[in-house]
Amino acid sequence: ARPRVGYYYTGKTGAEIPLQEIKELKVKEYQSIPVVVGEADSVYDAISAMFLEDVGTLFVVDQSSQLAGVLSRKDLLRASIGKQDLETMPVSIIMTRMPNITVCRKEDFLLEAASLLIERQIDALPVVSEKDNHQYEVVGRVTKTTMTKALVHLVNSERPLGGNRS
Amino acid sequence: ARPRVGYYYTGKTGAEIPLQEIKELKVKEYQSIPVVVGEADSVYDAISAMFLEDVGTLFVVDQSSQLAGVLSRKDLLRASIGKQDLETMPVSIIMTRMPNITVCRKEDFLLEAASLLIERQIDALPVVSEKDNHQYEVVGRVTKTTMTKALVHLVNSERPLGGNRS
Repeated sequence: ARPRVGYYYTGKTGAEIPLQEIKELKVKEYQSIPVVVGEADSVYDAISAMFLEDVGTLFVVDQSSQLAGVLSRKDLLRASIGKQDLETMPVSIIMTRMPNITVCRKEDFLLEAASLLIERQIDALPVVSEKDNHQYEVVGRVTKTTMTKALVHLVNSERPLGGNRS
Repeated sequence: ARPRVGYYYTGKTGAEIPLQEIKELKVKEYQSIPVVVGEADSVYDAISAMFLEDVGTLFVVDQSSQLAGVLSRKDLLRASIGKQDLETMPVSIIMTRMPNITVCRKEDFLLEAASLLIERQIDALPVVSEKDNHQYEVVGRVTKTTMTKALVHLVNSERPLGGNRS
């Protein structure tokens, strides 16, 4: 490789990030806390929760606290320009439902989760713990914000591996 | 470092990404096409544009095509649950205005843009070309999607540098 010259040039002593270590980063090291609403909650309450918690995606759980759906800002925006009464419409009408939800697990590789976000064109994945009968408990959240933070942290930390950075 | 064992373990021959090369990636190598609306356009038209173009952030330009504001999904959602008529309300009422807009330039480092997205808690930055009198022409867009793609590409490509990957 030809030498690079400039203020940021550090020469051959520059640190390197072992590619393998990035590939082995786990979802659990970067996941954040999920924000959930109940499937009987109103769209209005979901919009309020989204603003209060300042998240882009809400997860919807059923009465047994299992994952039932996902609500994006886009879903809520679409509903809010409709003619229905947001205070009486339950989120179950507009959410993306199981089994059409893309999920990940805390032991999954972070880069696999990042690839899923890009391939499926979604903003967030619920991190789930699987129960019997394909029942999922929501234990975390990874988003494009998670991935942006990971990119910044990888470059800024001397040792990208070790410990929870969320 | 202690050895890691497992299916993905490649031993000491694993590739490394020179940290310096990641730090030197430029915004222009990853930026995507900006989606703009006019400041006299209605909020309803902006919501339509957001769905049609499938973006999370719109940039607002004035009559001379210079950057005047930014509209996030959150801004549009907040407006849509209000009592106003979305078809007559101009976006200029609800947009974030200059000079409160965080911008970047195509020669900026990608990682600086990523840090700005995290620090300012925003989803997108307009890539601008500066004119006289702090007038900005919008020439691109970098978002948390851009950063998620960059993270995936860095790990999947043997040679992270060289060429436009957007």
